[in-house]
Amino acid sequence: MISGADLLARADALAAVTETPPALTRSYLTPEHRRASDLVLGWMRAAGMSAALDAAGNCAGRYEGRAPGLPCLMLGSHLDTVRDAGKYDGILGVLAAIACVDALHRAGERLPFAVEVLGFGDEEGVRFGGTLIGSRAVAGSFDPALLDLRDAAGTSLAEAYRAFGLDPARLPAIARRRADVLAYVELHIEQGPRLEAEGLPLGVVTAIAGFTRLQVEIAGMAGHAGTVPMAGRRDALAAAAECVLAVEKRGGAPGLVATVGKIEAAPGAINVIPGAARFTVDMRSADDALREAAIAALSREFRAIAARRGVDLAIHGTQSSPAAVCAPWIMEQLAAAVRAEGVREFRLMSGAGHDGMAMIRIADIGMLFVRCARGISHNPAEAIAAEDAETGARALLRFVRAFRPKEDTR
Amino acid sequence: MISGADLLARADALAAVTETPPALTRSYLTPEHRRASDLVLGWMRAAGMSAALDAAGNCAGRYEGRAPGLPCLMLGSHLDTVRDAGKYDGILGVLAAIACVDALHRAGERLPFAVEVLGFGDEEGVRFGGTLIGSRAVAGSFDPALLDLRDAAGTSLAEAYRAFGLDPARLPAIARRRADVLAYVELHIEQGPRLEAEGLPLGVVTAIAGFTRLQVEIAGMAGHAGTVPMAGRRDALAAAAECVLAVEKRGGAPGLVATVGKIEAAPGAINVIPGAARFTVDMRSADDALREAAIAALSREFRAIAARRGVDLAIHGTQSSPAAVCAPWIMEQLAAAVRAEGVREFRLMSGAGHDGMAMIRIADIGMLFVRCARGISHNPAEAIAAEDAETGARALLRFVRAFRPKEDTR
Repeated sequence: MISGADLLARADALAAVTETPPALTRSYLTPEHRRASDLVLGWMRAAGMSAALDAAGNCAGRYEGRAPGLPCLMLGSHLDTVRDAGKYDGILGVLAAIACVDALHRAGERLPFAVEVLGFGDEEGVRFGGTLIGSRAVAGSFDPALLDLRDAAGTSLAEAYRAFGLDPARLPAIARRRADVLAYVELHIEQGPRLEAEGLPLGVVTAIAGFTRLQVEIAGMAGHAGTVPMAGRRDALAAAAECVLAVEKRGGAPGLVATVGKIEAAPGAINVIPGAARFTVDMRSADDALREAAIAALSREFRAIAARRGVDLAIHGTQSSPAAVCAPWIMEQLAAAVRAEGVREFRLMSGAGHDGMAMIRIADIGMLFVRCARGISHNPAEAIAAEDAETGARALLRFVRAFRPKEDTR
Repeated sequence: MISGADLLARADALAAVTETPPALTRSYLTPEHRRASDLVLGWMRAAGMSAALDAAGNCAGRYEGRAPGLPCLMLGSHLDTVRDAGKYDGILGVLAAIACVDALHRAGERLPFAVEVLGFGDEEGVRFGGTLIGSRAVAGSFDPALLDLRDAAGTSLAEAYRAFGLDPARLPAIARRRADVLAYVELHIEQGPRLEAEGLPLGVVTAIAGFTRLQVEIAGMAGHAGTVPMAGRRDALAAAAECVLAVEKRGGAPGLVATVGKIEAAPGAINVIPGAARFTVDMRSADDALREAAIAALSREFRAIAARRGVDLAIHGTQSSPAAVCAPWIMEQLAAAVRAEGVREFRLMSGAGHDGMAMIRIADIGMLFVRCARGISHNPAEAIAAEDAETGARALLRFVRAFRPKEDTR
């Protein structure tokens, strides 16, 4: 039987495996990664799986189907954490997946497909800067250039693999083929406030948002705060403030969110008109075309503000990533499982990134969100109700038991 | 005869006396202060004055009138600089005053009052943080608590006086009485762009602006830039951006300037909604009541913005100083001297602070501004035309020669 209390107890046990006690930090290829993996691999084996670390340091467990070697339904999430993390981000998805297999195993059930559970070693990218290293290796998109990334101590990723007992030359071999993976499905805490606001324990994710990030620099003219008349000013910060409000307004359109998280004014003295300012923009949407049009419109607004104020504006360091859209056929099956738990169906976008962004390269993806308190994540205050964890894992088990691969749904 | 080229040559000679060659930095009670004072005292004596360092390290020169011991017309400015300074801020006023006395001396003229020239040792406050130390000592408003101020090396002001050969116990003795000082008049570079915009070499100052400075803190709620819907946000930076624009708009009213020079958002990550923001406000006006009303209105606007957005707002660390209004009878006489030089009369506020803010305690004050290139000051690019320096010093000499004390003007 799936127990929410047991899921939380296992999350507590993993939270005790930390580089920074009593705070939780567990990064890639560290002794704590090893100790946490030992726990997880033990739980996987107890649930009837064959389990081992793969060449990327992921915990990989497999529960065979009615015959050995069948294509798999892959469940998973990540086991690494941010610094001073909460206990459930990533972890809950791995524990729930193990609990599902455990339930099948105890009931002696074999399905017409294998079930695999992946506990990815790196999603957050805390140690080496590159994110999704674990899932990229499984999805076959691991770029060998990543091996030269170095941590704060100067250790390269390649060196860290060897020190962990892994051979980076074996990384390509763990890449999975599309024919092997029927779907990739991840349960995860929402990390946002929408389910709480709806009064719902679960939600079906429609897409992992695509994002665009901009670095904007404005050059005006510094001057004495007392001696330069207002009409003659080219105040870089005042221009930036107008841009910040434009970002907020543009982000308020349906299907978008947009944020200015950083701002600086230079020289930054109370009695000097800012001659320069810089700020960031983070815009996300499940709809790539909508996001791209909004970024184009925002860039035009920025330029109009700059032109009107006689300041120079440059948009540097643009980064973007497309949305990872969840497969409608998987959403349908997840929604059916949620409804069967007596929970009203609710669909929502994931604004945060997840391993599905890598896994979509080789499989259709789906995600199930579990309500988290006040939407707080990446914070020791991260909290979930045992009851919600249980409802989530039960819905996931219903989904697994009833899972029909895409070809069977046509 | 007054020569602009000579004035600039002397400014060059003083600029060579620096703690940070080739950049110009000359702070209070340093060996460079001593060397610059030796130059200035020599020029004062050559101009017919008795001259010595006073107990505050000011260069104090006196040119007697038709009888010894008459009340004086006091001219002056400061000899210290900011870090990486220009050559004319303060310095030009001292050099122009010496040149005026030199012209009287060469012509054998004695006036019905004495003329004193003060080269204040500290106006900028770079070394000890307290500003206007030199003129506060002369005006009798030197606070003995200042003696405990310490420089970056940990030396107290009291210790620095002694190391310079001065006895801080003698500071009160240099305070002047109102009956001794008929007026305090200072020539200074404008440090702003208005004379250049008007095409004028000189302007008569109406007042040294009063100022209010605020530190504003906003507390909203941090959150994930991807997962928190726009409608549920309490973004501290977006609120601050609205406040920045309110400051700019309010500062645009006639008779005011207002500036936000510093801003910060926390935690300050590209993908995190700012949970906190802080910014500064600097507002100035020649009209204290106007400034105070504008600050009150702005504070109400800030609170309305905060209330509408559901963020907390606190205004901390308010500092203010009243305007130092120039005496109309002195302005009239300065304006007459300017017109006599063939220059259209133009009156303007000083947005920057000056020694007159201290001297107004014991005397009516007046100021004459000289055009500076592009309004740039506190910067090595500070520049003036030799011709403007000459016109300014000639106007000052006309003013001195024609000076009638207030009682004679009634």
